[in-house]
Amino acid sequence: MKIIDGKEISNQIKLEIKKEVDQIILKGQRPPHLAAVIVGEDGASLTYVGSKVRSCRQVGFESTLVKLQSSISEEKLIEKINLLNSDKEIDGFIVQLPLPKHINEENILMAIDPNKDVDGFHPTNFGKMALNMETFIPATPFGIMELLKRYNIETSGKHTVVIGRSHIVGRPISILMNSKGKAGDSTVTVVHSRTVNLESYTKNADIIVSALGIPEFVKSDMVKSGVVIIDVGITRVKDDNSIKGYVIKGDVDFESMKSKASFITPVPGGVGPMTIAMLLKNTLLSRKISI
Amino acid sequence: MKIIDGKEISNQIKLEIKKEVDQIILKGQRPPHLAAVIVGEDGASLTYVGSKVRSCRQVGFESTLVKLQSSISEEKLIEKINLLNSDKEIDGFIVQLPLPKHINEENILMAIDPNKDVDGFHPTNFGKMALNMETFIPATPFGIMELLKRYNIETSGKHTVVIGRSHIVGRPISILMNSKGKAGDSTVTVVHSRTVNLESYTKNADIIVSALGIPEFVKSDMVKSGVVIIDVGITRVKDDNSIKGYVIKGDVDFESMKSKASFITPVPGGVGPMTIAMLLKNTLLSRKISI
Repeated sequence: MKIIDGKEISNQIKLEIKKEVDQIILKGQRPPHLAAVIVGEDGASLTYVGSKVRSCRQVGFESTLVKLQSSISEEKLIEKINLLNSDKEIDGFIVQLPLPKHINEENILMAIDPNKDVDGFHPTNFGKMALNMETFIPATPFGIMELLKRYNIETSGKHTVVIGRSHIVGRPISILMNSKGKAGDSTVTVVHSRTVNLESYTKNADIIVSALGIPEFVKSDMVKSGVVIIDVGITRVKDDNSIKGYVIKGDVDFESMKSKASFITPVPGGVGPMTIAMLLKNTLLSRKISI
Repeated sequence: MKIIDGKEISNQIKLEIKKEVDQIILKGQRPPHLAAVIVGEDGASLTYVGSKVRSCRQVGFESTLVKLQSSISEEKLIEKINLLNSDKEIDGFIVQLPLPKHINEENILMAIDPNKDVDGFHPTNFGKMALNMETFIPATPFGIMELLKRYNIETSGKHTVVIGRSHIVGRPISILMNSKGKAGDSTVTVVHSRTVNLESYTKNADIIVSALGIPEFVKSDMVKSGVVIIDVGITRVKDDNSIKGYVIKGDVDFESMKSKASFITPVPGGVGPMTIAMLLKNTLLSRKISI
Protein backbone atom coordinates (compact mmCIF):
# COMPACT_ATOMS: atom_id res chain seq x y z
CA MET A 1 0.00 0.00 0.00
CA LYS A 2 1.25 3.44 -0.94
CA ILE A 3 0.46 6.56 1.05
CA ILE A 4 -0.66 9.57 -1.01
CA ASP A 5 1.24 12.33 0.72
CA GLY A 6 -0.93 15.42 0.46
CA LYS A 7 1.36 17.38 2.74
CA GLU A 8 4.31 16.86 0.41
CA ILE A 9 2.34 17.57 -2.78
CA SER A 10 0.79 20.68 -1.28
CA ASN A 11 4.27 21.93 -0.37
CA GLN A 12 5.42 21.29 -3.94
CA ILE A 13 2.45 23.26 -5.25
CA LYS A 14 3.14 26.10 -2.85
CA LEU A 15 6.75 26.22 -4.08
CA GLU A 16 5.53 26.34 -7.68
CA ILE A 17 3.17 29.18 -6.77
CA LYS A 18 5.94 31.01 -4.93
CA LYS A 19 8.11 30.88 -8.05
CA GLU A 20 5.35 32.41 -10.14
CA VAL A 21 4.78 35.12 -7.54
CA ASP A 22 8.51 35.93 -7.56
CA GLN A 23 8.31 36.36 -11.34
CA ILE A 24 5.33 38.70 -11.03
CA ILE A 25 7.16 40.80 -8.46
CA LEU A 26 10.36 40.82 -10.55
CA LYS A 27 8.31 42.38 -13.36
CA GLY A 28 7.42 45.20 -10.99
CA GLN A 29 3.82 44.10 -10.54
CA ARG A 30 1.95 43.59 -7.31
CA PRO A 31 1.64 40.05 -5.91
CA PRO A 32 -1.71 38.19 -5.75
CA HIS A 33 -3.97 39.32 -2.94
CA LEU A 34 -6.48 37.07 -1.16
CA ALA A 35 -9.04 38.37 1.32
CA ALA A 36 -10.98 36.28 3.81
CA VAL A 37 -14.20 37.38 5.45
CA ILE A 38 -15.09 35.84 8.78
CA VAL A 39 -18.28 36.56 10.68
CA GLY A 40 -18.32 35.80 14.41
CA GLU A 41 -15.97 33.87 16.63
CA ASP A 42 -16.42 30.20 15.70
CA GLY A 43 -13.24 28.40 16.83
CA ALA A 44 -12.86 26.03 13.89
CA SER A 45 -13.56 28.83 11.39
CA LEU A 46 -10.92 31.06 13.00
CA THR A 47 -8.42 28.19 12.78
CA TYR A 48 -9.14 27.58 9.08
CA VAL A 49 -8.96 31.25 8.18
CA GLY A 50 -5.78 31.74 10.20
CA SER A 51 -4.19 28.89 8.34
CA LYS A 52 -5.20 30.38 4.99
CA VAL A 53 -3.64 33.72 5.92
CA ARG A 54 -0.38 32.00 7.01
CA SER A 55 -0.26 30.11 3.72
CA CYS A 56 -0.60 33.39 1.82
CA ARG A 57 2.54 34.62 3.55
CA GLN A 58 4.42 31.42 2.65
CA VAL A 59 3.88 31.97 -1.09
CA GLY A 60 4.36 35.73 -1.09
CA PHE A 61 0.69 36.72 -1.45
CA GLU A 62 -0.82 39.74 0.18
CA SER A 63 -3.70 38.83 2.47
CA THR A 64 -6.47 40.70 4.22
CA LEU A 65 -8.60 39.35 7.02
CA VAL A 66 -11.99 41.01 7.34
CA LYS A 67 -13.37 40.17 10.80
CA LEU A 68 -17.02 41.05 11.33
CA GLN A 69 -19.26 40.75 14.38
CA SER A 70 -21.77 37.91 14.40
CA SER A 71 -24.55 40.50 14.83
CA ILE A 72 -23.88 42.07 11.42
CA SER A 73 -26.97 42.27 9.19
CA GLU A 74 -27.16 40.51 5.83
CA GLU A 75 -27.41 43.91 4.17
CA LYS A 76 -24.22 45.21 5.80
CA LEU A 77 -22.37 42.00 4.95
CA ILE A 78 -23.38 42.37 1.30
CA GLU A 79 -22.09 45.96 1.43
CA LYS A 80 -18.71 44.63 2.59
CA ILE A 81 -18.75 42.06 -0.21
CA ASN A 82 -19.48 44.80 -2.75
CA LEU A 83 -16.43 46.70 -1.50
CA LEU A 84 -14.29 43.60 -2.07
CA ASN A 85 -15.89 43.04 -5.49
CA SER A 86 -14.89 46.52 -6.64
CA ASP A 87 -11.45 46.63 -4.99
CA LYS A 88 -8.97 46.36 -7.87
CA GLU A 89 -6.16 45.38 -5.50
CA ILE A 90 -7.93 42.20 -4.42
CA ASP A 91 -7.84 39.21 -6.77
CA GLY A 92 -10.08 36.88 -4.85
CA PHE A 93 -11.84 36.46 -1.57
CA ILE A 94 -13.66 33.87 0.44
CA VAL A 95 -16.48 34.14 2.93
CA GLN A 96 -15.83 31.55 5.61
CA LEU A 97 -18.82 29.30 6.27
CA PRO A 98 -20.94 28.68 8.28
CA LEU A 99 -22.55 32.10 8.67
CA PRO A 100 -24.82 33.10 11.59
CA LYS A 101 -28.36 31.81 11.17
CA HIS A 102 -29.95 35.21 10.48
CA ILE A 103 -27.89 35.49 7.28
CA ASN A 104 -29.00 33.64 4.13
CA GLU A 105 -25.89 31.92 2.75
CA GLU A 106 -27.40 31.73 -0.75
CA ASN A 107 -27.85 35.52 -0.88
CA ILE A 108 -24.24 36.00 0.23
CA LEU A 109 -22.93 33.55 -2.35
CA MET A 110 -24.87 35.31 -5.10
CA ALA A 111 -23.41 38.69 -4.05
CA ILE A 112 -19.82 37.56 -4.73
CA ASP A 113 -18.41 38.56 -8.12
CA PRO A 114 -17.79 35.20 -9.87
CA ASN A 115 -14.47 36.60 -11.12
CA LYS A 116 -13.29 36.83 -7.51
CA ASP A 117 -14.95 33.66 -6.24
CA VAL A 118 -11.74 31.67 -5.69
CA ASP A 119 -13.71 29.11 -3.64
CA GLY A 120 -15.56 28.21 -6.86
CA PHE A 121 -18.87 28.04 -5.00
CA HIS A 122 -20.80 30.63 -7.07
CA PRO A 123 -23.34 28.99 -9.43
CA THR A 124 -21.72 30.61 -12.46
CA ASN A 125 -18.39 29.00 -11.62
CA PHE A 126 -19.96 25.71 -10.61
CA GLY A 127 -21.90 25.65 -13.87
CA LYS A 128 -18.79 26.42 -15.91
CA MET A 129 -17.04 23.52 -14.22
CA ALA A 130 -19.98 21.20 -14.97
CA LEU A 131 -19.95 22.39 -18.60
CA ASN A 132 -16.17 21.86 -18.82
CA MET A 133 -15.35 25.56 -19.23
CA GLU A 134 -12.33 27.28 -17.67
CA THR A 135 -13.14 28.46 -14.17
CA PHE A 136 -12.21 28.32 -10.50
CA ILE A 137 -12.64 24.70 -9.37
CA PRO A 138 -13.70 24.31 -5.71
CA ALA A 139 -10.52 23.77 -3.71
CA THR A 140 -11.12 20.31 -2.22
CA PRO A 141 -12.14 18.49 -5.44
CA PHE A 142 -9.44 20.47 -7.29
CA GLY A 143 -6.94 19.12 -4.75
CA ILE A 144 -8.15 15.54 -5.23
CA MET A 145 -7.74 15.85 -9.02
CA GLU A 146 -4.21 17.14 -8.49
CA LEU A 147 -3.31 14.21 -6.20
CA LEU A 148 -4.63 11.70 -8.74
CA LYS A 149 -2.61 13.40 -11.49
CA ARG A 150 0.65 13.69 -9.57
CA TYR A 151 0.47 10.06 -8.41
CA ASN A 152 -0.37 8.96 -11.98
CA ILE A 153 -3.42 7.06 -10.82
CA GLU A 154 -5.33 5.70 -13.79
CA THR A 155 -8.95 6.86 -13.71
CA SER A 156 -10.05 6.39 -17.34
CA GLY A 157 -12.59 3.56 -17.57
CA LYS A 158 -12.23 2.80 -13.86
CA HIS A 159 -15.23 2.63 -11.57
CA THR A 160 -15.18 5.44 -9.05
CA VAL A 161 -17.65 5.43 -6.17
CA VAL A 162 -18.16 8.81 -4.53
CA ILE A 163 -19.67 8.59 -1.05
CA GLY A 164 -21.69 11.75 -0.35
CA ARG A 165 -23.39 14.29 -2.60
CA SER A 166 -22.42 17.59 -0.93
CA HIS A 167 -22.06 20.76 -2.98
CA ILE A 168 -18.46 21.29 -1.94
CA VAL A 169 -17.02 17.80 -2.43
CA GLY A 170 -19.22 14.89 -3.56
CA ARG A 171 -21.06 16.56 -6.41
CA PRO A 172 -18.12 18.48 -7.93
CA ILE A 173 -15.65 15.56 -7.70
CA SER A 174 -18.22 13.25 -9.33
CA ILE A 175 -18.53 15.71 -12.22
CA LEU A 176 -14.78 16.27 -12.59
CA MET A 177 -13.85 12.58 -12.54
CA ASN A 178 -16.65 11.83 -15.03
CA SER A 179 -15.45 14.54 -17.45
CA LYS A 180 -12.98 14.03 -20.28
CA GLY A 181 -9.29 14.48 -19.55
CA LYS A 182 -6.55 13.56 -17.12
CA ALA A 183 -7.81 12.17 -13.79
CA GLY A 184 -11.22 12.04 -15.53
CA ASP A 185 -13.03 9.67 -17.91
CA SER A 186 -14.03 7.54 -14.95
CA THR A 187 -17.36 5.71 -14.62
CA VAL A 188 -18.73 7.43 -11.54
CA THR A 189 -21.41 6.31 -9.10
CA VAL A 190 -22.57 8.67 -6.36
CA VAL A 191 -23.89 6.91 -3.26
CA HIS A 192 -25.53 8.73 -0.34
CA SER A 193 -27.81 8.41 2.68
CA ARG A 194 -30.69 7.04 0.56
CA THR A 195 -28.59 4.43 -1.21
CA VAL A 196 -29.76 0.86 -0.66
CA ASN A 197 -27.01 -1.74 -0.08
CA LEU A 198 -24.12 0.72 -0.23
CA GLU A 199 -21.55 -2.08 0.04
CA SER A 200 -22.66 -3.56 -3.27
CA TYR A 201 -21.27 -0.38 -4.88
CA THR A 202 -18.12 0.07 -2.81
CA LYS A 203 -17.15 -3.58 -3.33
CA ASN A 204 -17.07 -2.98 -7.09
CA ALA A 205 -15.13 0.28 -6.92
CA ASP A 206 -11.63 0.74 -8.31
CA ILE A 207 -11.48 4.14 -6.64
CA ILE A 208 -13.43 5.37 -3.62
CA VAL A 209 -13.77 9.05 -2.73
CA SER A 210 -15.38 9.31 0.67
CA ALA A 211 -16.79 12.66 1.76
CA LEU A 212 -19.31 11.63 4.34
CA GLY A 213 -18.01 12.89 7.69
CA ILE A 214 -18.62 9.67 9.61
CA PRO A 215 -15.38 8.49 11.27
CA GLU A 216 -14.09 5.10 10.08
CA PHE A 217 -17.30 4.36 8.18
CA VAL A 218 -15.54 2.61 5.29
CA LYS A 219 -14.11 -0.74 6.48
CA SER A 220 -11.80 -3.04 4.57
CA ASP A 221 -14.52 -5.69 4.09
CA MET A 222 -16.51 -3.13 2.05
CA VAL A 223 -13.85 -2.79 -0.65
CA LYS A 224 -12.02 -4.95 -3.12
CA SER A 225 -8.30 -5.60 -3.09
CA GLY A 226 -6.20 -2.95 -4.83
CA VAL A 227 -8.74 -0.14 -4.37
CA VAL A 228 -7.54 3.49 -4.37
CA ILE A 229 -8.89 5.37 -1.36
CA ILE A 230 -9.35 9.14 -1.24
CA ASP A 231 -10.52 10.04 2.25
CA VAL A 232 -12.02 13.52 2.52
CA GLY A 233 -13.52 13.03 5.97
CA ILE A 234 -12.16 15.17 8.81
CA THR A 235 -14.01 14.59 12.08
CA ARG A 236 -12.90 15.48 15.57
CA VAL A 237 -13.39 12.48 17.84
CA LYS A 238 -13.21 12.93 21.62
CA ASP A 239 -10.09 11.29 23.05
CA ASP A 240 -9.06 11.85 26.65
CA ASN A 241 -5.60 10.42 25.97
CA SER A 242 -4.86 13.23 23.55
CA ILE A 243 -3.54 16.59 24.79
CA LYS A 244 -6.12 18.45 22.69
CA GLY A 245 -8.90 16.22 24.03
CA TYR A 246 -9.69 14.93 20.54
CA VAL A 247 -8.16 13.16 17.58
CA ILE A 248 -8.86 13.73 13.90
CA LYS A 249 -10.43 10.76 12.11
CA GLY A 250 -11.17 10.21 8.45
CA ASP A 251 -14.13 8.40 6.89
CA VAL A 252 -11.97 5.32 6.35
CA ASP A 253 -10.72 2.72 8.81
CA PHE A 254 -7.07 3.32 7.89
CA GLU A 255 -5.52 0.46 9.86
CA SER A 256 -7.72 -2.29 8.40
CA MET A 257 -7.33 -0.82 4.91
CA LYS A 258 -3.55 -1.37 4.88
CA SER A 259 -3.90 -4.91 3.59
CA LYS A 260 -6.45 -4.00 0.93
CA ALA A 261 -5.78 -0.62 -0.70
CA SER A 262 -3.17 0.09 -3.37
CA PHE A 263 -3.14 3.85 -2.59
CA ILE A 264 -4.63 5.76 0.30
CA THR A 265 -4.75 9.35 1.54
CA PRO A 266 -4.10 9.54 5.29
CA VAL A 267 -6.11 11.77 7.63
CA PRO A 268 -4.60 14.17 8.52
CA GLY A 269 -1.99 14.82 5.81
CA GLY A 270 -3.92 13.68 2.74
CA VAL A 271 -6.63 15.76 1.09
CA GLY A 272 -6.69 18.39 3.87
CA PRO A 273 -3.42 20.23 3.08
CA MET A 274 -4.33 20.25 -0.64
CA THR A 275 -7.39 22.41 -0.07
CA ILE A 276 -5.46 25.50 0.95
CA ALA A 277 -2.85 24.96 -1.79
CA MET A 278 -5.59 24.90 -4.44
CA LEU A 279 -7.24 28.00 -3.00
CA LEU A 280 -3.90 29.75 -3.48
CA LYS A 281 -3.68 28.37 -7.01
CA ASN A 282 -7.11 29.81 -7.83
CA THR A 283 -6.05 33.18 -6.44
CA LEU A 284 -2.87 33.11 -8.55
CA LEU A 285 -5.01 32.25 -11.59
CA SER A 286 -7.26 35.23 -10.89
CA ARG A 287 -4.21 37.51 -10.58
CA LYS A 288 -2.77 36.25 -13.87
CA ILE A 289 -6.04 36.88 -15.71
CA SER A 290 -6.01 40.51 -14.60
CA ILE A 291 -2.38 41.20 -15.60
CA MET B 1 -44.84 -3.58 -19.69
CA LYS B 2 -46.34 -0.12 -19.46
CA ILE B 3 -45.74 2.57 -22.07
CA ILE B 4 -44.82 6.00 -20.70
CA ASP B 5 -46.89 8.22 -22.95
CA GLY B 6 -44.92 11.44 -23.36
CA LYS B 7 -47.32 12.72 -25.97
CA GLU B 8 -50.25 12.51 -23.57
CA ILE B 9 -48.36 13.98 -20.61
CA SER B 10 -47.00 16.83 -22.74
CA ASN B 11 -50.55 17.62 -23.86
CA GLN B 12 -51.68 17.66 -20.23
CA ILE B 13 -48.85 20.05 -19.38
CA LYS B 14 -49.72 22.29 -22.32
CA LEU B 15 -53.33 22.43 -21.11
CA GLU B 16 -52.14 23.38 -17.61
CA ILE B 17 -49.95 26.10 -19.12
CA LYS B 18 -52.83 27.34 -21.28
CA LYS B 19 -55.01 27.71 -18.18
CA GLU B 20 -52.37 29.82 -16.49
CA VAL B 21 -51.96 31.95 -19.61
CA ASP B 22 -55.72 32.50 -19.71
CA GLN B 23 -55.57 33.71 -16.10
CA ILE B 24 -52.76 36.12 -16.93
CA ILE B 25 -54.71 37.54 -19.88
CA LEU B 26 -57.90 37.76 -17.80
CA LYS B 27 -55.98 39.99 -15.40
CA GLY B 28 -55.26 42.31 -18.32
CA GLN B 29 -51.59 41.40 -18.55
CA ARG B 30 -49.69 40.36 -21.65
CA PRO B 31 -49.13 36.63 -22.27
CA PRO B 32 -45.67 34.99 -22.05
CA HIS B 33 -43.47 35.65 -25.06
CA LEU B 34 -40.80 33.25 -26.33
CA ALA B 35 -38.31 34.16 -29.05
CA ALA B 36 -36.21 31.72 -31.04
CA VAL B 37 -33.05 32.65 -32.90
CA ILE B 38 -32.05 30.51 -35.84
CA VAL B 39 -28.89 31.01 -37.86
CA GLY B 40 -28.75 29.47 -41.34
CA GLU B 41 -30.98 26.98 -43.11
CA ASP B 42 -30.30 23.63 -41.39
CA GLY B 43 -33.35 21.44 -42.10
CA ALA B 44 -33.60 19.72 -38.72
CA SER B 45 -33.10 23.02 -36.87
CA LEU B 46 -35.87 24.69 -38.92
CA THR B 47 -38.18 21.78 -38.08
CA TYR B 48 -37.43 22.01 -34.34
CA VAL B 49 -37.87 25.77 -34.23
CA GLY B 50 -41.06 25.61 -36.31
CA SER B 51 -42.47 23.12 -33.86
CA LYS B 52 -41.58 25.35 -30.91
CA VAL B 53 -43.36 28.31 -32.51
CA ARG B 54 -46.47 26.20 -33.22
CA SER B 55 -46.52 25.03 -29.60
CA CYS B 56 -46.41 28.64 -28.42
CA ARG B 57 -49.60 29.28 -30.37
CA GLN B 58 -51.28 26.23 -28.80
CA VAL B 59 -50.80 27.57 -25.27
CA GLY B 60 -51.53 31.23 -26.05
CA PHE B 61 -47.94 32.50 -25.93
CA GLU B 62 -46.61 35.22 -28.17
CA SER B 63 -43.66 34.03 -30.22
CA THR B 64 -41.00 35.66 -32.36
CA LEU B 65 -38.78 33.89 -34.82
CA VAL B 66 -35.47 35.66 -35.50
CA LYS B 67 -34.03 34.19 -38.71
CA LEU B 68 -30.43 35.16 -39.45
CA GLN B 69 -28.15 34.37 -42.36
CA SER B 70 -25.46 31.76 -41.79
CA SER B 71 -22.84 34.36 -42.77
CA ILE B 72 -23.64 36.57 -39.76
CA SER B 73 -20.60 37.46 -37.65
CA GLU B 74 -20.33 36.46 -34.01
CA GLU B 75 -20.31 40.14 -33.09
CA LYS B 76 -23.56 40.85 -34.93
CA LEU B 77 -25.20 37.78 -33.43
CA ILE B 78 -24.24 38.99 -29.95
CA GLU B 79 -25.77 42.38 -30.81
CA LYS B 80 -29.04 40.61 -31.66
CA ILE B 81 -28.85 38.71 -28.38
CA ASN B 82 -28.34 41.94 -26.47
CA LEU B 83 -31.49 43.34 -28.07
CA LEU B 84 -33.43 40.30 -26.86
CA ASN B 85 -31.82 40.59 -23.42
CA SER B 86 -33.06 44.15 -23.01
CA ASP B 87 -36.48 43.69 -24.63
CA LYS B 88 -38.95 43.86 -21.75
CA GLU B 89 -41.68 42.24 -23.85
CA ILE B 90 -39.71 39.02 -24.24
CA ASP B 91 -39.63 36.60 -21.30
CA GLY B 92 -37.23 34.07 -22.70
CA PHE B 93 -35.41 33.08 -25.84
CA ILE B 94 -33.41 30.25 -27.24
CA VAL B 95 -30.59 30.19 -29.77
CA GLN B 96 -31.07 27.04 -31.83
CA LEU B 97 -27.91 24.89 -32.02
CA PRO B 98 -25.74 23.99 -33.86
CA LEU B 99 -24.36 27.36 -34.99
CA PRO B 100 -22.13 27.86 -38.05
CA LYS B 101 -18.50 26.92 -37.38
CA HIS B 102 -17.15 30.48 -37.43
CA ILE B 103 -19.25 31.29 -34.36
CA ASN B 104 -18.06 30.25 -30.90
CA GLU B 105 -21.06 28.66 -29.17
CA GLU B 106 -19.58 29.31 -25.72
CA ASN B 107 -19.37 33.06 -26.40
CA ILE B 108 -23.00 33.07 -27.56
CA LEU B 109 -24.15 31.14 -24.51
CA MET B 110 -22.36 33.57 -22.20
CA ALA B 111 -24.03 36.53 -23.95
CA ILE B 112 -27.54 35.34 -23.03
CA ASP B 113 -29.05 36.94 -19.91
CA PRO B 114 -29.46 33.99 -17.49
CA ASN B 115 -32.87 35.41 -16.55
CA LYS B 116 -34.05 34.80 -20.13
CA ASP B 117 -32.18 31.54 -20.70
CA VAL B 118 -35.24 29.28 -20.79
CA ASP B 119 -33.10 26.49 -22.27
CA GLY B 120 -31.21 26.40 -18.95
CA PHE B 121 -27.88 26.06 -20.76
CA HIS B 122 -26.13 29.15 -19.30
CA PRO B 123 -23.52 28.20 -16.66
CA THR B 124 -25.26 30.33 -14.02
CA ASN B 125 -28.47 28.36 -14.48
CA PHE B 126 -26.67 25.04 -14.80
CA GLY B 127 -24.76 25.81 -11.61
CA LYS B 128 -27.94 26.78 -9.76
CA MET B 129 -29.48 23.47 -10.80
CA ALA B 130 -26.41 21.56 -9.60
CA LEU B 131 -26.52 23.48 -6.30
CA ASN B 132 -30.26 22.77 -5.94
CA MET B 133 -31.31 26.40 -6.29
CA GLU B 134 -34.45 27.56 -8.16
CA THR B 135 -33.69 28.02 -11.84
CA PHE B 136 -34.59 27.05 -15.40
CA ILE B 137 -33.91 23.30 -15.74
CA PRO B 138 -32.80 22.22 -19.25
CA ALA B 139 -35.94 21.07 -21.07
CA THR B 140 -35.09 17.43 -21.81
CA PRO B 141 -33.98 16.39 -18.31
CA PHE B 142 -36.81 18.53 -16.89
CA GLY B 143 -39.20 16.52 -19.07
CA ILE B 144 -37.77 13.21 -17.86
CA MET B 145 -38.23 14.27 -14.22
CA GLU B 146 -41.83 15.19 -15.00
CA LEU B 147 -42.52 11.79 -16.61
CA LEU B 148 -41.06 9.98 -13.60
CA LYS B 149 -43.20 12.07 -11.25
CA ARG B 150 -46.46 11.75 -13.18
CA TYR B 151 -46.05 7.97 -13.54
CA ASN B 152 -45.16 7.70 -9.82
CA ILE B 153 -41.98 5.80 -10.60
CA GLU B 154 -40.00 5.22 -7.42
CA THR B 155 -36.47 6.57 -7.76
CA SER B 156 -35.36 6.94 -4.13
CA GLY B 157 -32.65 4.42 -3.33
CA LYS B 158 -32.94 2.87 -6.78
CA HIS B 159 -29.90 2.40 -9.01
CA THR B 160 -30.12 4.63 -12.07
CA VAL B 161 -27.63 4.17 -14.88
CA VAL B 162 -27.34 7.15 -17.21
CA ILE B 163 -25.78 6.31 -20.58
CA GLY B 164 -23.98 9.38 -21.94
CA ARG B 165 -22.47 12.45 -20.27
CA SER B 166 -23.64 15.25 -22.58
CA HIS B 167 -24.21 18.75 -21.23
CA ILE B 168 -27.83 18.81 -22.35
CA VAL B 169 -29.04 15.41 -21.13
CA GLY B 170 -26.68 12.96 -19.44
CA ARG B 171 -24.97 15.31 -17.00
CA PRO B 172 -28.04 17.30 -15.90
CA ILE B 173 -30.31 14.26 -15.50
CA SER B 174 -27.61 12.50 -13.45
CA ILE B 175 -27.48 15.53 -11.13
CA LEU B 176 -31.26 15.90 -10.86
CA MET B 177 -31.95 12.23 -10.14
CA ASN B 178 -29.13 12.20 -7.57
CA SER B 179 -30.51 15.27 -5.75
CA LYS B 180 -32.96 15.20 -2.88
CA GLY B 181 -36.68 15.24 -3.63
CA LYS B 182 -39.32 13.68 -5.81
CA ALA B 183 -37.95 11.70 -8.79
CA GLY B 184 -34.56 12.16 -7.09
CA ASP B 185 -32.61 10.45 -4.28
CA SER B 186 -31.44 7.82 -6.73
CA THR B 187 -28.01 6.19 -6.67
CA VAL B 188 -26.73 7.32 -10.06
CA THR B 189 -23.97 5.89 -12.22
CA VAL B 190 -22.95 7.70 -15.42
CA VAL B 191 -21.48 5.42 -18.10
CA HIS B 192 -19.95 6.68 -21.33
CA SER B 193 -17.63 5.89 -24.23
CA ARG B 194 -14.69 5.19 -21.91
CA THR B 195 -16.63 2.88 -19.61
CA VAL B 196 -15.21 -0.64 -19.40
CA ASN B 197 -17.79 -3.46 -19.41
CA LEU B 198 -20.83 -1.24 -19.76
CA GLU B 199 -23.20 -4.20 -19.42
CA SER B 200 -22.03 -4.87 -15.88
CA TYR B 201 -23.63 -1.52 -14.98
CA THR B 202 -26.80 -1.72 -17.07
CA LYS B 203 -27.52 -5.25 -15.77
CA ASN B 204 -27.65 -3.87 -12.23
CA ALA B 205 -29.81 -0.87 -13.08
CA ASP B 206 -33.35 -0.37 -11.77
CA ILE B 207 -33.71 2.61 -14.12
CA ILE B 208 -31.82 3.30 -17.35
CA VAL B 209 -31.73 6.72 -18.99
CA SER B 210 -30.10 6.36 -22.38
CA ALA B 211 -28.92 9.51 -24.17
CA LEU B 212 -26.30 8.12 -26.48
CA GLY B 213 -27.65 8.57 -30.01
CA ILE B 214 -26.83 5.04 -31.22
CA PRO B 215 -29.97 3.36 -32.57
CA GLU B 216 -31.05 0.20 -30.69
CA PHE B 217 -27.82 0.09 -28.69
CA VAL B 218 -29.48 -1.14 -25.49
CA LYS B 219 -30.68 -4.72 -25.94
CA SER B 220 -32.84 -6.75 -23.58
CA ASP B 221 -29.95 -9.03 -22.58
CA MET B 222 -28.15 -5.98 -21.14
CA VAL B 223 -30.84 -5.26 -18.54
CA LYS B 224 -32.55 -6.97 -15.65
CA SER B 225 -36.21 -7.85 -15.53
CA GLY B 226 -38.48 -5.03 -14.36
CA VAL B 227 -36.15 -2.23 -15.44
CA VAL B 228 -37.57 1.23 -16.17
CA ILE B 229 -36.33 2.52 -19.53
CA ILE B 230 -36.13 6.20 -20.44
CA ASP B 231 -35.00 6.42 -24.05
CA VAL B 232 -33.72 9.87 -25.04
CA GLY B 233 -32.14 8.77 -28.33
CA ILE B 234 -33.63 10.18 -31.54
CA THR B 235 -31.73 9.03 -34.61
CA ARG B 236 -32.88 9.12 -38.22
CA VAL B 237 -32.16 5.73 -39.80
CA LYS B 238 -32.35 5.37 -43.59
CA ASP B 239 -35.35 3.27 -44.61
CA ASP B 240 -36.39 3.01 -48.25
CA ASN B 241 -39.75 1.52 -47.26
CA SER B 242 -40.69 4.73 -45.48
CA ILE B 243 -42.21 7.67 -47.38
CA LYS B 244 -39.77 10.09 -45.73
CA GLY B 245 -36.85 7.80 -46.61
CA TYR B 246 -35.99 7.33 -42.95
CA VAL B 247 -37.42 6.11 -39.68
CA ILE B 248 -36.79 7.49 -36.18
CA LYS B 249 -35.05 5.08 -33.82
CA GLY B 250 -34.31 5.35 -30.13
CA ASP B 251 -31.25 4.09 -28.25
CA VAL B 252 -33.20 1.07 -27.07
CA ASP B 253 -34.28 -2.06 -28.93
CA PHE B 254 -37.96 -1.54 -28.14
CA GLU B 255 -39.29 -4.85 -29.46
CA SER B 256 -36.94 -7.07 -27.47
CA MET B 257 -37.45 -4.93 -24.35
CA LYS B 258 -41.19 -5.70 -24.20
CA SER B 259 -40.62 -8.88 -22.18
CA LYS B 260 -38.15 -7.25 -19.77
CA ALA B 261 -39.05 -3.65 -18.90
CA SER B 262 -41.72 -2.56 -16.41
CA PHE B 263 -41.99 0.91 -17.95
CA ILE B 264 -40.61 2.28 -21.21
CA THR B 265 -40.72 5.53 -23.16
CA PRO B 266 -41.33 4.88 -26.87
CA VAL B 267 -39.47 6.70 -29.64
CA PRO B 268 -41.14 8.75 -31.01
CA GLY B 269 -43.78 9.81 -28.49
CA GLY B 270 -41.83 9.45 -25.24
CA VAL B 271 -39.26 12.01 -24.10
CA GLY B 272 -39.35 14.00 -27.36
CA PRO B 273 -42.73 15.75 -26.93
CA MET B 274 -41.86 16.60 -23.31
CA THR B 275 -38.93 18.78 -24.35
CA ILE B 276 -41.07 21.48 -25.96
CA ALA B 277 -43.64 21.33 -23.15
CA MET B 278 -40.92 22.01 -20.57
CA LEU B 279 -39.46 24.85 -22.64
CA LEU B 280 -42.93 26.44 -22.52
CA LYS B 281 -43.08 25.79 -18.76
CA ASN B 282 -39.75 27.60 -18.29
CA THR B 283 -41.03 30.54 -20.36
CA LEU B 284 -44.20 30.71 -18.26
CA LEU B 285 -42.04 30.64 -15.11
CA SER B 286 -39.99 33.56 -16.44
CA ARG B 287 -43.18 35.51 -17.19
CA LYS B 288 -44.54 34.86 -13.71
CA ILE B 289 -41.33 36.08 -12.07
CA SER B 290 -41.58 39.39 -13.94
CA ILE B 291 -45.24 40.03 -13.09
